[in-house]
Amino acid sequence: MLQEIYFDNSATTRQFDEVTKLMADVARNTYGNPSSLHTKGIEAERLIISARETIANLLGAQPQEIYFTSGGTESNNLAIRGFLDANPRLGKHIITTQIEHPSVLEVYRQLEKQGYDVDYIGVDKEGLLDINQLREKLKSETALISIILVNNETGVIQQIDQIAAVRDDINMKTVIHVDAVQAYGKISIRPEKAGIGLMSVSSHKIHGPKGLGALYVSRGIKLNPLFYGGGQESLLRSGTENVPGIAGFGLASKLTFEQLEDNYAKVVMLKGLFIDRLKSTSLDYHVLSPEGSSAYILSIAFEDVKAEVLLHHLEQKGIYVSTGSACSSRRNSKSHVLTALNLPSGIIDGTIRFSFSIFNTEEEVIKAVHTLDEIIPAIDINRRHILRRNSNR
Amino acid sequence: MLQEIYFDNSATTRQFDEVTKLMADVARNTYGNPSSLHTKGIEAERLIISARETIANLLGAQPQEIYFTSGGTESNNLAIRGFLDANPRLGKHIITTQIEHPSVLEVYRQLEKQGYDVDYIGVDKEGLLDINQLREKLKSETALISIILVNNETGVIQQIDQIAAVRDDINMKTVIHVDAVQAYGKISIRPEKAGIGLMSVSSHKIHGPKGLGALYVSRGIKLNPLFYGGGQESLLRSGTENVPGIAGFGLASKLTFEQLEDNYAKVVMLKGLFIDRLKSTSLDYHVLSPEGSSAYILSIAFEDVKAEVLLHHLEQKGIYVSTGSACSSRRNSKSHVLTALNLPSGIIDGTIRFSFSIFNTEEEVIKAVHTLDEIIPAIDINRRHILRRNSNR
Repeated sequence: MLQEIYFDNSATTRQFDEVTKLMADVARNTYGNPSSLHTKGIEAERLIISARETIANLLGAQPQEIYFTSGGTESNNLAIRGFLDANPRLGKHIITTQIEHPSVLEVYRQLEKQGYDVDYIGVDKEGLLDINQLREKLKSETALISIILVNNETGVIQQIDQIAAVRDDINMKTVIHVDAVQAYGKISIRPEKAGIGLMSVSSHKIHGPKGLGALYVSRGIKLNPLFYGGGQESLLRSGTENVPGIAGFGLASKLTFEQLEDNYAKVVMLKGLFIDRLKSTSLDYHVLSPEGSSAYILSIAFEDVKAEVLLHHLEQKGIYVSTGSACSSRRNSKSHVLTALNLPSGIIDGTIRFSFSIFNTEEEVIKAVHTLDEIIPAIDINRRHILRRNSNR
Repeated sequence: MLQEIYFDNSATTRQFDEVTKLMADVARNTYGNPSSLHTKGIEAERLIISARETIANLLGAQPQEIYFTSGGTESNNLAIRGFLDANPRLGKHIITTQIEHPSVLEVYRQLEKQGYDVDYIGVDKEGLLDINQLREKLKSETALISIILVNNETGVIQQIDQIAAVRDDINMKTVIHVDAVQAYGKISIRPEKAGIGLMSVSSHKIHGPKGLGALYVSRGIKLNPLFYGGGQESLLRSGTENVPGIAGFGLASKLTFEQLEDNYAKVVMLKGLFIDRLKSTSLDYHVLSPEGSSAYILSIAFEDVKAEVLLHHLEQKGIYVSTGSACSSRRNSKSHVLTALNLPSGIIDGTIRFSFSIFNTEEEVIKAVHTLDEIIPAIDINRRHILRRNSNR
């Protein structure tokens, strides 16, 4: 049987076995509705309280600042819409970057249609936000700035401290919303200390269950809900709580944060090894993930090799990777992130994302680079062959 | 150890072990992101396609008419807001009933604040919608009617055929949205045949995972999404899909629908036995669930016994029930459903909901009634005792 190498961990991760076991146990034994008045309800509620405390502690936050949602997308939508709906007097100007995840970018586009004045701040060739442009655009009517902390395509890490300092200079009322989906459990982040008002996180990127996320809402920030109903999550997020999922998300968070530094050291080593090994091949490649980017993400372009073609060749060898981000990979449009980096079209079309997890090994990295070295020259020949056949028709 | 008797199945159910097993298996082996282009993504996508087909078949619908959501609350919110946002020209008048679940009622209240003209149709003493009132209120500007098919507090089943006939008479453009959360997998329902345009269902009421629901959207009906992002669920519901949950929901649906009639016969028997046994006691009670209501729900008032007090006495004996619905039980307000039935306050305050599932047995029913017969007279004494002590202070 083919040994599988899963290098698509920024798309989603394999759930921890401990989490799967806990969720099965909760589904079997603590199946009550947390809103029920009896013991079965109270036991279920306790699991939620405990998961909320765990996540709050890991972020240096208070439990009442953590709200569970159905995932990162809901958290981003709730942060942006919920905040703007609840604070109409702060102004109709909002700011984001050109390299956000669609669950931020598409919300901003909708808001633009609805009369909001939106600035999409550009980035330099490494993907870092243009801080001077931010300084120019920020004004007294700016209600919200949304920033992706770790970009999902290249791994570039934004300097939230600098962004918060500009905000503090110009308009203290502007709230900073951070999409921390690719950062949570991977790099250390304390929203309160960093001057962040709203922060979205997701469970399935850290070996937790799918369908779970959370939103950090700093004390004193008012949000409107996206849904109305039974008033769960302190009225902010109605709907019977996914108790096994929340418990699983709490455990995955705990397991991840406990090992955050060791895990990071491991992926630093894997990413370094990957690049070192690549250097020893004769392949023509460009590393797009800049110096200082998240070690969990390695974005590489192989020039003149279509990323999608390479992806399918790699999967035939049991190696799973991504072209751009999974979330937009089914769309036939060019990556907006790589476009914002001002890269030539040949590079954009040839970009592959290798994204690591703690389950990956050195052996896998060595094998992957070896496989790239084997198949890329062969792909070139095939492509030429296909082109020739087409032109004969 | 105390034998547990769980009669709160309308609040939530215990997950099928088969579902738990499947979800663990999917989490372990089919953990890819369905948006990923490689095999791991495609395998995950196949599970979603299969669950969607299962649910569509069970409802006599097409797979493309089924959208997965995070639960019944989201389905109701998406149906109502999504429809009204996408169809502003149909009119600013909307209709619902006085006995809806909060996830419909609260959405209508919000819409009322936002300028919609809302009629909340009353019900007769059995809880059946006043069809004449509906006929009077329905007009050319009515965009939407939301109706709860099986009421979660009393089990009363609305006659959707009659409601659809009135709609057909007066305004064919008015769309009927049905909250079928307590009906799905319990009574037979074919939305297309019944003239239903939108129908919300939930997973955790039928021994499926929590955090999952679906919305049936009849072909040709346009909805706007509640969240924007990666464009999953044909652009209607962005966010990485909860693949193990969706697979589990599909399996729970299959297991439930396969046995729908046998299951119903079983709960008819349990409910009948409950009432028969009660008759043989000397207790003073009123059955609120009318003739023809869902056999899964038995709502009973014990006069002069506060429901919450009885609930806690029952849980001490290992019997789990509900006062009103779990979703509103943590609020200290009187049930709006029982209030709409025009019941005296003593009855409303004394109402307990026993809700059954296929896991319940005759033995449990017999024991529960026996326990009621034992503890209710004792509670009365305690209450008098408490009252006396209070008045001595």
